[in-house]
Amino acid sequence: MTTQPLGVGLLGLGTVGTGVARVLLAKRSALEARVGRPVRITCVLVRDLAKPRGVDLGEVRLVTDAQEVIGDPHTEVVVEVIGGEEPARSLIIEAIRQGKHVVTANKEVMAKHGPMILRAAAERGVSVAYEASVGGGIPLIGPFQLDLAANDITSVVGIVNGTTNYILTRMSESGASFADALKEAQDLGYAEPDPTNDVEAWDAAYKLAILASLAFGAPVGPQQVWREGITQVSQRDIQYAAELGYRIKLLAIARLVGGQVEARVHPALVHQGSMLASVDGSFNAVQIEGDLIGTALFYGRGAGSEPTSSAVIADLIALGTSVGRGSLQSQRASVPLRPMQNLQTRYFLRLLTLDRPGVMAAIATVLGDRGISLASVVQKESVVLGDDVPGAEIVLTTHIASEAAVQEAITTLQRMPVVRSIGALYRVFE
Amino acid sequence: MTTQPLGVGLLGLGTVGTGVARVLLAKRSALEARVGRPVRITCVLVRDLAKPRGVDLGEVRLVTDAQEVIGDPHTEVVVEVIGGEEPARSLIIEAIRQGKHVVTANKEVMAKHGPMILRAAAERGVSVAYEASVGGGIPLIGPFQLDLAANDITSVVGIVNGTTNYILTRMSESGASFADALKEAQDLGYAEPDPTNDVEAWDAAYKLAILASLAFGAPVGPQQVWREGITQVSQRDIQYAAELGYRIKLLAIARLVGGQVEARVHPALVHQGSMLASVDGSFNAVQIEGDLIGTALFYGRGAGSEPTSSAVIADLIALGTSVGRGSLQSQRASVPLRPMQNLQTRYFLRLLTLDRPGVMAAIATVLGDRGISLASVVQKESVVLGDDVPGAEIVLTTHIASEAAVQEAITTLQRMPVVRSIGALYRVFE
Repeated sequence: MTTQPLGVGLLGLGTVGTGVARVLLAKRSALEARVGRPVRITCVLVRDLAKPRGVDLGEVRLVTDAQEVIGDPHTEVVVEVIGGEEPARSLIIEAIRQGKHVVTANKEVMAKHGPMILRAAAERGVSVAYEASVGGGIPLIGPFQLDLAANDITSVVGIVNGTTNYILTRMSESGASFADALKEAQDLGYAEPDPTNDVEAWDAAYKLAILASLAFGAPVGPQQVWREGITQVSQRDIQYAAELGYRIKLLAIARLVGGQVEARVHPALVHQGSMLASVDGSFNAVQIEGDLIGTALFYGRGAGSEPTSSAVIADLIALGTSVGRGSLQSQRASVPLRPMQNLQTRYFLRLLTLDRPGVMAAIATVLGDRGISLASVVQKESVVLGDDVPGAEIVLTTHIASEAAVQEAITTLQRMPVVRSIGALYRVFE
Repeated sequence: MTTQPLGVGLLGLGTVGTGVARVLLAKRSALEARVGRPVRITCVLVRDLAKPRGVDLGEVRLVTDAQEVIGDPHTEVVVEVIGGEEPARSLIIEAIRQGKHVVTANKEVMAKHGPMILRAAAERGVSVAYEASVGGGIPLIGPFQLDLAANDITSVVGIVNGTTNYILTRMSESGASFADALKEAQDLGYAEPDPTNDVEAWDAAYKLAILASLAFGAPVGPQQVWREGITQVSQRDIQYAAELGYRIKLLAIARLVGGQVEARVHPALVHQGSMLASVDGSFNAVQIEGDLIGTALFYGRGAGSEPTSSAVIADLIALGTSVGRGSLQSQRASVPLRPMQNLQTRYFLRLLTLDRPGVMAAIATVLGDRGISLASVVQKESVVLGDDVPGAEIVLTTHIASEAAVQEAITTLQRMPVVRSIGALYRVFE
């Protein structure tokens, strides 16, 4: 056992950084017993030296120049908890260049630049660990790299954004509109004042890119992820879905189909009673299919200072004890992407039509002609369309159909005079 | 990178052993890439050399003398997949004595003798890894030892026996009796011809002892686990529970309460819609509470050749890459056990009484006098007792009460002339 302390340099002292510092100080003796040597914070990069902090760092230096953290000879591991693409990316690269291990919670940087960063780290003989970048405190990257390593992974399906899951849960429980549920999430601090990153599913797409790259051993970038957010999810759809035995969740799905990767993030219908449907509020879960394990699922808090700190500290322990996780590079340079048009799945479709004889037959014909078979049809009492015209609301679910056929059918339906509007189109997760 | 092969000696070639051998051979190149050196089976202990095997082991020697496996100079890791207490325990000890690492799937040995085995391994400078002993393919021991290491764990609650969960799921879904559901499980190979180990919850108690020891850093033995099986669970109770919004599951619960460990395995009512209630069929799940992560849950297949092989191979990779998990010993020599009488929880009680005025008042008085407050009461239309006497069936749930008070109330109720029998008493998991 060496007595050389494990020197930790912190880049960032926001919510996560403060949490990490607090745990490092409060649990020092337990951590040192686990790592087998002293653990010390060397110095901490902050933006504003004068800002009051929620943690007493004692003698630890606060600095405004990142080089003082990275270049400190006692810094053995750089913990990047700034977030966002720049300057985080450049600082990670600089830390690697200077021969420092890196622990990062940065999903955007790892999703966009992970392959390059891991290659640079391997060349320099250091590790980059990023457990905290996906699923907060839920162990995911560790299990992928070690516990599930004997498996060929065929699919990863997750609820990986707590903000949107909170909004959808509230809409389901309280009957709130999307706008009201978003406002509530903002008031509680679950959603940002500008919620775009969450509700347009960028955050989920970043996380899916990281998970898919790990699962399939080949880089998958966020631009390869088909992405639809939840802003169009209506209370009507949530109610219809519930009547049919489903809940609507924002799913991040990556699957290997015929040697191609299918990667998509969109709202989907999930069977009530399934594990994923039971993931409520701001919780996250990731369901994994492997050839040996079959189905496994990991569930927990996907964000927040303390869960994220738990993951950062786990990475620190791994690095401090030379477990060296995070340094695995992709085994393959690339994997072909499966075009979204080739997707085969079930669909949920809600249409507003004129209330006339023959409408149902016309719609069914459009679908049937394209090989789309109906699994269920619901038409309730008449509704009144915007211009006082009596109308009908028709909700259909299909058996497995191709995305290309469904999109073509939608285009045709939209052009029909009896169809007033396509209220919603969702994919159903089996 | 060394080119010295990782020599694996197999003790046992039953269901799990065959699975492990098959994966080691079928995934050889992927494993070698992961471990960084060749992986070879040295030789395999079997009981009967003539028995046909479900795997083609090629040149690998089958032997009937364990010493040939353990003592083979090329054996670096001994994989024990014999099961049961002896000779497995002695062979593990012998392997350690000869300086070999050990991977075991043996819950009985690790629950009963884990502390002694881990101490012996540490003294000899080898590792004993036992991921496969709990939860089959679900990563649990790895996460406890590394991913959740920054957490103070306060509770572990699991559905850790697939056989009993299958039986309870079938009783809930199909209305089958315990006997019929057990028969079905036996026909499907989920339950043994002698099901005692599963239905009397010995298996779950072993697994809970292992999980509690890891979670609380102190040895907890199976004899310290309060244990009730599922043979008394009736279809009536399942139906009443469902009406009240609960499902009945065999839960393994370990909690730290006031510095004492509460460890118990018994059927319990679990809220419908909760993650644990959604764990159906032969699946397992373990829910963990930690100070940083809050609640996390791990779900998957808890048994079977392939999931168990997944865990064994993960341990092999860890040992082959010097991750050295499994070698952690308890930080504390012991932790005080919380007496079952001190348990504070909610209860579900079903009583058969005579159908007379004043019966409900008398029962409520017995409970109220002992500080047991009622949360719900259901009394349906009259039932006919065994001897054609008209009776009533009363189902109560309580607010939080103490086990001591409830047991005392039950004793008093049983002595009352108007109470024919105590149909059921369950604890409610919150």
